[in-house]
Parts: sequence; structure tokens; C-alpha cells
Amino acid sequence: AYSSGSKKVTLIPGDGIGPEISAAVQKIFAAANVPIEWEAVDVTPVRGPDGKFGIPQAAIDSVNTNKIGLKGPLMTPVGKGHRSLNLALRKEFNLYANVRPCRSLEGYKTLYDDVDVVTIRENTEGEYSGIEHEIVDGVVQSIKLITEEASKRVAEYAFQYAKNNNRKKVTVVHKANIMRMSDGLFLRCVRDMAQKFPDIQFEERYLDTVCLNMVQNPGKYDVLVMPNLYGDILSDMCAGLVGGLGLTPSGNMGLNGALFESVHGTAPDIAGKDLANPTALLLSAVMMLRHMELNSHAEKIERAAFETIKEGKYLTGDLGGRAKCSEFTNEICIKL
Amino acid sequence: AYSSGSKKVTLIPGDGIGPEISAAVQKIFAAANVPIEWEAVDVTPVRGPDGKFGIPQAAIDSVNTNKIGLKGPLMTPVGKGHRSLNLALRKEFNLYANVRPCRSLEGYKTLYDDVDVVTIRENTEGEYSGIEHEIVDGVVQSIKLITEEASKRVAEYAFQYAKNNNRKKVTVVHKANIMRMSDGLFLRCVRDMAQKFPDIQFEERYLDTVCLNMVQNPGKYDVLVMPNLYGDILSDMCAGLVGGLGLTPSGNMGLNGALFESVHGTAPDIAGKDLANPTALLLSAVMMLRHMELNSHAEKIERAAFETIKEGKYLTGDLGGRAKCSEFTNEICIKL
Ligand SMILES: CC(C)[C@H](C(=O)O)[C@@H](O)C(=O)O
Ligand SMILES: CC(C)[C@H](C(=O)O)[C@@H](O)C(=O)O
Repeated sequence: AYSSGSKKVTLIPGDGIGPEISAAVQKIFAAANVPIEWEAVDVTPVRGPDGKFGIPQAAIDSVNTNKIGLKGPLMTPVGKGHRSLNLALRKEFNLYANVRPCRSLEGYKTLYDDVDVVTIRENTEGEYSGIEHEIVDGVVQSIKLITEEASKRVAEYAFQYAKNNNRKKVTVVHKANIMRMSDGLFLRCVRDMAQKFPDIQFEERYLDTVCLNMVQNPGKYDVLVMPNLYGDILSDMCAGLVGGLGLTPSGNMGLNGALFESVHGTAPDIAGKDLANPTALLLSAVMMLRHMELNSHAEKIERAAFETIKEGKYLTGDLGGRAKCSEFTNEICIKL
Repeated sequence: AYSSGSKKVTLIPGDGIGPEISAAVQKIFAAANVPIEWEAVDVTPVRGPDGKFGIPQAAIDSVNTNKIGLKGPLMTPVGKGHRSLNLALRKEFNLYANVRPCRSLEGYKTLYDDVDVVTIRENTEGEYSGIEHEIVDGVVQSIKLITEEASKRVAEYAFQYAKNNNRKKVTVVHKANIMRMSDGLFLRCVRDMAQKFPDIQFEERYLDTVCLNMVQNPGKYDVLVMPNLYGDILSDMCAGLVGGLGLTPSGNMGLNGALFESVHGTAPDIAGKDLANPTALLLSAVMMLRHMELNSHAEKIERAAFETIKEGKYLTGDLGGRAKCSEFTNEICIKL
């Protein structure tokens, strides 16, 4: 059914509700005649020749070849020493910028109706360095690592993103009043990059101040760029303003490819029951289409999804409705 | 005018609007016949015999003797090497727990009307260790330091606070999924302490999840305890939910005394113009009275302040009114 010009996209369906919502996205993409071909892979860690668990080579090869992927939620393997699989993927593919747009949906009422922000998070280092030591009994240190290289590239990504998406302003979020050297370095890199984008407004704000202002007046902000942990926090908070992680997309931009993912959990309690909301994964897939410059397909699908939400007849339980995942999905397909 | 049984309290009026709002608090306390005697001190750093700048000895002595103080906002001295004076005070007096209650005020409408949370923040270490290095050019590390000692004492403070204040639940906020050793240690210390307070509910939550839930449903939370930086962020965010830093009190509990302070800035633009809102400092002073077990005075003053805000006739500019600081203050005094 796909045109011979269709591009291959790696699909990591994920765990829990992952397979259902992935199937929903595939169905919607088929209904919209999106010219891509899915290559589904499993990333459940396997024991390698060295005895250590790791992402299966086939999955790594698929992403490296296709250079683009869509990913559902993953369970973190239980047991000491297992780091989050999500983090392993970010590392394996050098996914250096995590991009999370949060926009108020016309169709889904929250306390806020003017949220339209994009958090861009450094995705490879900072508080996520994984370097920790016990100095003596009861005294532990974790290393927050900031490099000029990683700070520059995420800064550049943020301004380029703002430019490409007709955004007016970039805010760098930091605590350089406390972490003078590390956040100071990050801040300087973004400040320097701002010079190269004179058409984009630039401001510097403390993380605590942004948190305070964001809940009072999110309309103040536009694109925000920041070190890893701050992005983890702010992106979740912004998602909260517009309805939660079930509604917000996410993209991880790499040196050599990009991986789009829904950020919510695997929701084991409702897995397999056709109750999950596929919106976050679908909007992540729409972000992916824009990244692939399949803009008209992106717009069409996004519009159908937003309309379905706005009409409110086929909402899943998390949005206060009673529809099944498949009913919501069908309604979007009908609109297409 | 003060009874001979009155207790001395150190007053650090602070910079910018600090002197005005301090005077407002003093006036209100006098009107309420609070049996304390103020000892005003200046903390502007002076150059010591070793050539380094530091807090004047007289100020240190005053706090150490009185063991209780109230502090207005302080400017951070400009220039490299100067650390925040606020931080210097926390360090000097071993102020290990920072307590910030945020409650929806009946008289001041925001998007939320059911906020009643208290953030309890470890106040001496974590990301605020001040230890940073440049490893090689363009590669910087900051040390997040977590000790069992500091984690235990803030954990104990949190549960004791919950117990003394009839609170139902303590939530520990962490990222031990990422910082397994440092936040892991903090988490274990709080978990262990929870055992000793079987009447208080206890839960463990990720910082990002708390941020998301807090903006959707703050009523979920009660007392929250966490490492230093997370407290900086969450307390500001919670303040935002109820109207900002002009309305929220703060107390720093030490091994050997306690310092209560308003957390907002010095507002140089309106300083000296009788336009500042003294509420945050006043509520901090009320917190101080409770700490001194002057509960009936605390209640009386708090009630008068809340009523004045609720009536809305004498609100300062930050609250959307046109009253002067002195008019707001007078109205509270009249009610007393
Ligand atoms: C699952 C967890 C490791 C992850 C993070 O902390 O980055 C998540 O919260 C996210 O935001 O993607
Ligand atoms: C002024 C600044 C150093 C301080 C902090 O970061 O702790 C402030 O934000 C606070 O919350 O007291």
C-alpha cells in the first residue's frame, strides 16, 4: 500500500499500553496515507557476549539506519544496576536535545487557556551524568557535568528551532547564582548563541522564578532552553498546565537521527484493555512528520485529533470520557 | 512599653523595601502588644582582619544570643566571589531546614483555592554545596553533596512538624531513579524516619511527578520534604499557586536558633516609596511567634492581616490595589 518512495521509520511499541497506542498511531497514519513504512523493533534488554544486559543489536541497527523512530513507553527493568532504558536510548543515539511543546488544547479545558511553550532540554549530561560516589560512610556526591560542547549544541538547537517555527523568544533557565561554574558555563553558551540570532528575543531567568511565573502567567514564555534536570521538571509542570502527559508530545534530537516518544508511563493497570489514550504518542508522531517535512500530513492528522478531542464525544477515561482507545482512533480515522 | 518578661528578637531589616516592611511589622507587633523587644542589626558585609568580606560580628553575636531573628530581603553584593548573603546566613547559623507554608488566602483569588502545603527543604548541602571544578577547558562539574546527617535531621524535622501541626501526610520528593546514590541516601533517611511516626501517612514521589500533579491538584499534597534545590523550585512554584512571594512566609530552622524571612526580592524600583507589601514578612513574623509559642498573638495578627486582605479595600499594588504600605499596615493595626 505504501508508495515506493516511502521512508522507513523504526517503531518501538514499548511496554504496557505501548502496543495498543502504537497500533492506534499506525492505523491513523494508514488512514492518512502517510508515505512511511514502519519497522517495528523490540528493545527489551538482552544479555550480550560480555554477560551484560543491553539494547538488542537489531534495534540499534534499525534506528541507526532509518535515523528516525517513534517510541512508546518503556518499563524500567527491575533490579539494581539497571538504569532506565529511556536513558540508555538517549545515550546510545546521542539524543542531545529533548523538545517538548505544550499547548493549551481548545478542546480540553484546564485552569489555563494560553499555554504555548516549548521546553528544550539538554539530554545527555548535567545531573544525569550517572557519576556518583560514596566518599565515606553516609556522605555521597553526585556529579553534575556541564560541557561547553553539549551546552552549545543544545543552545544552537533551541535558537534554530525558534527560528524555524516562527517563535519570538528564547529564555535560558538556570541557577547560575548557585552553580556559578556549571550553570554559569551553560548560561554563557546560550548567551553567546543568542548573538547569532539577533531576530529572536533572548532572556535569562532563574529556574525558581520561571516555576513561579509559569503557574501564574504561562503566556510570558515561549521557547525555554535549560540543563537536563531542569527540563525534566519544567516539561512535566508545563504538561500539567495543559492536561498532563497523556496529551503532550516529545522529540529527542540526535546527532545522527531523532526519536519521538510519548513521555507518560506504561500504565500496567489498563494495559491490554483498549482504554489507553493514544494522543501523546500520536502528537509525537505528528512532530516526527514535521521533522521529516511531511507537513501537510502532519497538519491533517493533528487537526483530526484536535477536532475529535474538541467534540468530546469519544474521549478516553483519562480525559473524563468513556470511549475506548479504538473508538477514539476510529473517529480520527473517519475525520481523515 | 514592653513587659520585663519580653524576649529579644534580632531584626535584620534588609535592603531595598526591607526597612519599610520591617517597620510595618514592628508597628503591627506594637499594636498587638507582642511581648518581644527588637534588636536591629546590619548584615552588610564588612572586611575582616583577614581582608575577606563577611557578616559583621555584632550581627552574628545578636542572632547567636537571641537565637531567633526576623529578616527582610537582602541584596546580593555584586562582584565575583561574593556568594549570596542569604546563603552565608544559612551556613553561619546552621539553618538546616527551610520551611515554607503556602496556603490559599480566602481574600486573594488565584486559579487555585485549595492549596495548603508546606515545603520543607534541606538547607545546607545538596546542589548548594558550592563545590565546583573545571576539569579541563569547557568541562565543569558541580558536586551535589548528600549526607546522612543532614538528611536525617531534616527528615526528623519534617515529621515532627507534621505531628505538631496536625498534618496528615509527609511526601518525600526525589529523583532517586536518576541520582541513585545521593537522592537514594536522602530517600532512605526519610523512609527510615517515617517508621518512627506511624500516625503520619508517608509517600515517595518523583520531583517531576510532583510538579505535574501540583499544578493540577495541589490538594493532593500536605507536607513535602526534599533536598535543597528541589525545595527552592517547589516552594516558589507553590507560592505562585497562591499569589506569589509577596504573600508567603518562610522559616529557617537551625541547630541553635531560627531565622524567619520573606523570600521576595528587595524591589529596588519601589523602595522608599511606601508602596511595598509587608505581608510576606508579617506572616514570617507570625510563624516566628508560633515558634516562640506566642500562639494567641500569632493568631490575632494573622486574622487581622487576612481580614484586611479579604476586605480588599487597602491592598498594595502587587495585589491589584492602590493602597500604600502604611495604609495597609494601619488597617491591620486598627483591626487589632
Ligand atoms: C523516566 C525518567 C528516567 C525520565 C527522566 O527523568 O528524564 C522521565 O521523567 C522523562 O522526563 O523522560
Ligand atoms: C536568593 C537565592 C540564593 C535563594 C535560593 O536559591 O535558595 C532563593 O531563591 C530562595 O529560595 O531562598
